[in-house]
Amino acid sequence: MVDLTHTLSPEFPFLPVEGKTFPFRSSPIATIKGDGVYANRWELTEHVGTHLDAPCHFAEGAMAIEAIPLETLFVPLAVVSIAERVATNPDTTLGAGDLMRWEKDHGEIPARAAVFLHTGWDVRTKEPGAFVNMDGAKTMRFPGFSDKAIEFLLGRRSISGIGIDTLSIDPGRDKEYAVHKELFRAGKWAVECVANLSRVPATGAFVFVAPVKVAGASGAPARIVAVW
Amino acid sequence: MVDLTHTLSPEFPFLPVEGKTFPFRSSPIATIKGDGVYANRWELTEHVGTHLDAPCHFAEGAMAIEAIPLETLFVPLAVVSIAERVATNPDTTLGAGDLMRWEKDHGEIPARAAVFLHTGWDVRTKEPGAFVNMDGAKTMRFPGFSDKAIEFLLGRRSISGIGIDTLSIDPGRDKEYAVHKELFRAGKWAVECVANLSRVPATGAFVFVAPVKVAGASGAPARIVAVW
Repeated sequence: MVDLTHTLSPEFPFLPVEGKTFPFRSSPIATIKGDGVYANRWELTEHVGTHLDAPCHFAEGAMAIEAIPLETLFVPLAVVSIAERVATNPDTTLGAGDLMRWEKDHGEIPARAAVFLHTGWDVRTKEPGAFVNMDGAKTMRFPGFSDKAIEFLLGRRSISGIGIDTLSIDPGRDKEYAVHKELFRAGKWAVECVANLSRVPATGAFVFVAPVKVAGASGAPARIVAVW
Repeated sequence: MVDLTHTLSPEFPFLPVEGKTFPFRSSPIATIKGDGVYANRWELTEHVGTHLDAPCHFAEGAMAIEAIPLETLFVPLAVVSIAERVATNPDTTLGAGDLMRWEKDHGEIPARAAVFLHTGWDVRTKEPGAFVNMDGAKTMRFPGFSDKAIEFLLGRRSISGIGIDTLSIDPGRDKEYAVHKELFRAGKWAVECVANLSRVPATGAFVFVAPVKVAGASGAPARIVAVW
């Protein structure tokens, strides 16, 4: 059993959107010394830390968090790694060819699977600047899924959702969110900022994706665990 | 597979503590119409909705959320019901005798089990006043665990944690939090505001308890699912 969830804290990196997003905040409302009980209040956006994006994040009228069927959140896990390529090129993306090569080695992606992309990016969360990886022109530079990979997964396989260890399923330099839009139009979910994918087998594991269940939410922090 | 999680919203009832607790709050930071993307920001306390209490909630220096071993969060589930008694007496508690009677019918509580108490209270969440159930003297009136039941579970069985469908594992009229304190001193977790326990078998299911993983948190909203 491996925890694929980062520990969320005020230091955890987040997708910077001027005037919209902010770091996770926590402040005490009671302490053992003063009140005999310890508790905090939080302020956060729906897409901070290891989290799930619901289809309604980009697709008008599509499913919000609470409507995602439980049966699509506890599913076989396929882990595809492009970490070796990422080491020399942060702009690289998962191509349809990568998926076909993976299937040659591991068999067809199982029905209902979650397909998680391991880029090796999760080790950068300890250094927020390196995780967001903004270049001189203020463009983020990190790997992601390509349109072609999503077309393959939606058109030729029967998946429940996808995941990645970076801030976004679209590559960092993308401004159109093409992968998000195509995936959400098809009613599938995505998880972002996944941890520890290097510790999970390419095939044979199950993943349990457990987002907080909030009415009408476009996304939510999630606990994600692989078992095999 | 049954979702034991309530959908959290601003209308969801919460434990009222003057100047400390407040309802769950959500407000939009972006809309599809205005921004091409939909997302919200949240304000909440750690103990709102279906949530987990970590031992550090009452025990100084005890485990916070992120330190709870994953192996104690995916465990056999024992569901004990006192719903029939609650129907005529909201102040009733689970006694050690109830646990012994349960074991006569279903066998010994399995090692590492989570013991969830079904009181039937979850159906009241749609009417916040009835869920908190404050009497004329401002004392909350709802069922809970007794000290004796906790002594039995900690001393004579080997459990991972406990759960209940009310706001607190201690009965509503309690002011000392004796059950919380004894359980947390022993390093066990508790979940509160659990839903749908009437739909889970008394024995034979597994439960997956998935709290949001926040550094140093005394508790956190959790997704809780039973599978069998």
